[in-house]
Amino acid sequence: MIKKYYSYTEFITDVNSLAEQINVGFDAILPISRGGLTLGHFLGEYYGIREVYAINTIGYDDTCKLDSVRVFNIPDLIHAKSVLIVDDIIDSGDTMVAVLDVLNDKFPQVKFRTAVLFYKPSALIRPDWYAQEAECWIDFFWSVDLTNG
Amino acid sequence: MIKKYYSYTEFITDVNSLAEQINVGFDAILPISRGGLTLGHFLGEYYGIREVYAINTIGYDDTCKLDSVRVFNIPDLIHAKSVLIVDDIIDSGDTMVAVLDVLNDKFPQVKFRTAVLFYKPSALIRPDWYAQEAECWIDFFWSVDLTNG
Repeated sequence: MIKKYYSYTEFITDVNSLAEQINVGFDAILPISRGGLTLGHFLGEYYGIREVYAINTIGYDDTCKLDSVRVFNIPDLIHAKSVLIVDDIIDSGDTMVAVLDVLNDKFPQVKFRTAVLFYKPSALIRPDWYAQEAECWIDFFWSVDLTNG
Repeated sequence: MIKKYYSYTEFITDVNSLAEQINVGFDAILPISRGGLTLGHFLGEYYGIREVYAINTIGYDDTCKLDSVRVFNIPDLIHAKSVLIVDDIIDSGDTMVAVLDVLNDKFPQVKFRTAVLFYKPSALIRPDWYAQEAECWIDFFWSVDLTNG
């Protein structure tokens, strides 16, 4: 499979691109762990939002993949009205769909929007904002820079 | 005040240094948001630990500063035995002390250890592992690279 190395420099370009696209305000930023953590950190700094939380998922290799994403460590969003969910990539879309299902059910008063670095057009869901379309496997700098160091 | 720019390149060196020092295993990594999120993400990737959670704090400018750190969005650690708490810096130490107080009280079965990039020797608490002593104000790359871009 073709692999693409995604560098820190390219990430900075893409986060600036996302920040230029995003045209609404948020009470909190919610990275999906682990992949969304660095992006959530940077966007929180950019917007001066201290309310950067995290949510966890585990995917199971079942026949019906969508039903098998468990979502846990759900933050308290009871006082929020607008929340930005961020992740590194929407690939199949299973994870984002599962997270949105759980959060919309638990916090119906919140308007959730989504931003990712990479989006595959074949995914189940299209994010509100993304930086690039994914065309191959991506080696993110947070996965490879340390072990290459 | 003297300011130091802390670059992504220096961060990679320091995370490798932390990873070389850390000599125990963990069931989960717990970054303190926002400052610890990127470090937590990288260490999770390094160790192959998917259980990277997050915890939030708010500090208030009261007379008694230590009493005024509120800790919230506490993850479920009921099944954990060993957890690594990470943050960018231990400065006064108030935040880390407050987080440890809350977590030790709520999860007495867990052994919590701490790792940070920067540590000030004047702080209330010494982390188990740190990469550098902090001698001045630090402009972390996640705070300045975007707005300088």
